[in-house]
Amino acid sequence: MAFEISPTPRVRRSPFFESTVADGVVSFSTYNHMLMPTGYGDPLAEYWRLIEGVSMWDVAVERQVEVVGPDAAKLAQILCPRKLEKLKVGAGWYVPICDHRGTLINDPIILKLAEDRFWFSIADGDLCVFARAIAAERELDVAVFEPDVAPLAIQGPKAEDVVADLLGDEIREIKHFRFREMMLDDITLVVARSGWSKQGGFELYLIDPARGPELWQTVKEAGQPYGIGPGTPNNMERIESGLLSWGGDTDDDTNPYEVGMDRYVHLDVHDEVVGIQALRRIWQAGPARHQMGITMDLEGQLGAIDQWSRIFDEDVLIGHVTAHTWSPRLEANIGLCLISRSYGPGSRVGIQLPDGRRTEGELRELPFL
Amino acid sequence: MAFEISPTPRVRRSPFFESTVADGVVSFSTYNHMLMPTGYGDPLAEYWRLIEGVSMWDVAVERQVEVVGPDAAKLAQILCPRKLEKLKVGAGWYVPICDHRGTLINDPIILKLAEDRFWFSIADGDLCVFARAIAAERELDVAVFEPDVAPLAIQGPKAEDVVADLLGDEIREIKHFRFREMMLDDITLVVARSGWSKQGGFELYLIDPARGPELWQTVKEAGQPYGIGPGTPNNMERIESGLLSWGGDTDDDTNPYEVGMDRYVHLDVHDEVVGIQALRRIWQAGPARHQMGITMDLEGQLGAIDQWSRIFDEDVLIGHVTAHTWSPRLEANIGLCLISRSYGPGSRVGIQLPDGRRTEGELRELPFL
Repeated sequence: MAFEISPTPRVRRSPFFESTVADGVVSFSTYNHMLMPTGYGDPLAEYWRLIEGVSMWDVAVERQVEVVGPDAAKLAQILCPRKLEKLKVGAGWYVPICDHRGTLINDPIILKLAEDRFWFSIADGDLCVFARAIAAERELDVAVFEPDVAPLAIQGPKAEDVVADLLGDEIREIKHFRFREMMLDDITLVVARSGWSKQGGFELYLIDPARGPELWQTVKEAGQPYGIGPGTPNNMERIESGLLSWGGDTDDDTNPYEVGMDRYVHLDVHDEVVGIQALRRIWQAGPARHQMGITMDLEGQLGAIDQWSRIFDEDVLIGHVTAHTWSPRLEANIGLCLISRSYGPGSRVGIQLPDGRRTEGELRELPFL
Repeated sequence: MAFEISPTPRVRRSPFFESTVADGVVSFSTYNHMLMPTGYGDPLAEYWRLIEGVSMWDVAVERQVEVVGPDAAKLAQILCPRKLEKLKVGAGWYVPICDHRGTLINDPIILKLAEDRFWFSIADGDLCVFARAIAAERELDVAVFEPDVAPLAIQGPKAEDVVADLLGDEIREIKHFRFREMMLDDITLVVARSGWSKQGGFELYLIDPARGPELWQTVKEAGQPYGIGPGTPNNMERIESGLLSWGGDTDDDTNPYEVGMDRYVHLDVHDEVVGIQALRRIWQAGPARHQMGITMDLEGQLGAIDQWSRIFDEDVLIGHVTAHTWSPRLEANIGLCLISRSYGPGSRVGIQLPDGRRTEGELRELPFL
């Protein structure tokens, strides 16, 4: 949609904003009350750079909710229906955060920085306000706040080489979702093997936002030999890879079981965990929907759509396509859907797009690739 | 900023979206996870239409958080440090919502629809998640959800005539912040004398979003004799009028006393109210800052800026300009600021804009007009 974004302090810019503008960013979304770059004008080039090379992303919108103090570990566990006992300092885990109804209200990575200090690296929802409310209601001795930490993601098969050139070969030893505090010259970073793609890579959490332009430039220069270029969280790749976009693929009734997070919910976790009673009831009753892939019999190449499509069995509404894209590797129009559990891989269904077009599709296992 | 907004279901469109596009909307912001129209290409015409005539606004982003059930009144009071005993069915009040630290986390209008049913008509923050957390932690028997209600604002000195032509002269009897459920043909509306300007007017809360285009068209036609045209929440007018933009004029430490909401905080409200202990402490210690107007000695006409400017006394940082605009009626560059209580009307201060420009300014009482 070719509309301008009007400036307001309600929607903040990233520490990398000027750098992304200089590098030709053309479109944004907003995320966690900030501007998030979404494209540099050549979606296919950006896609293939991620799949075959290396791409650098301004993901400062991935805000941290820091939980620190004597009761930090207690609060972290109260917020997560996944047992955190075995989470070690220096490791991150993907966790569901549910409200008391068992509804998924965020799907962060929790990073354990110290025994009494955690970051929730969050999706697009005000988790800080929620976490503060729970902490205060439970009278916990803990501080909860949003530090101004700005992640820069380096993603793609050549990302490791770029980061090794920047920070030394020791980064090759960092396992998936592990992180280390490191110095890049005199810039302090938390370096994690993570990122919102399945192509591998790292996230450099910048601690001092004033160093944003410098970090961007340094990464850009280190990446030159590998053909690095600017990119963004990639709708095509993430749908192929079956990565969840909370708030896009979920609604106000989606529980973790519906979006493939079963293994991150431990029903025998302590009763104090927010939502655990509801999750037990949901599990017993059986969740209504599940997330699946879908291929669509449409001519042409679908772009992202700002609304869900409806899925029918004959005239009966049975679910929604929550995310749409053309898949360059599958050479097909594909999507993610939330659909009744009565339908599984191979089911043929009818689809009505938001613009009224009707087509058919077939359900697929996730990930596509 | 001339960037495109990329489509995603994370950022929803309004029921009036197609209508605003047909009427020439050129820019958006996002607000409560939705697209909010911010301009139709002629800011001065839109301003004068609001000041002298009548303007129609898509403010569907002004979401409702509905609180309903046996404990609804109890929860409403727990969320508001303003005594709600005297709030009558059919009336709305402006209220601060604070977290346990006494920090302002929203500044909604609360509408009392029935003894056991309320709407919080919210600013740009996830109040629903917060209210649900408090309700569940306090074990209250209440439902909290976001109904898909879409307000359309009709603002300006001729707004009353337009709404009277639409709905009958009885609407002239509706007092400020009062509302009635009414039918426009067969479209159900909640009609309130309210809106985010000081030019007078009404908000029509559309209950069935499917009727959006029809309502837009009907209002547009009824407004023709009065020269109605499309508009949006207006940065120039709201700064002149001293209206607060929560999240834009506030930060993560702003309490209600700092932004002129003193008279909406009742320190003798029940101890169970969220944040009341903190508010008592803040009141006793004396709030650090206050919101004031500021005039700036800049050449040219300022537009909105996406960052705060810094305010200095000599070299000492004493506050920030949180909102900037050219005022067509004052023929001056003006702003709102959050500044140390040591500085009052008439104080001369130094200002550094985000782009580095330096100027001087003078503090003023609010509202400007």
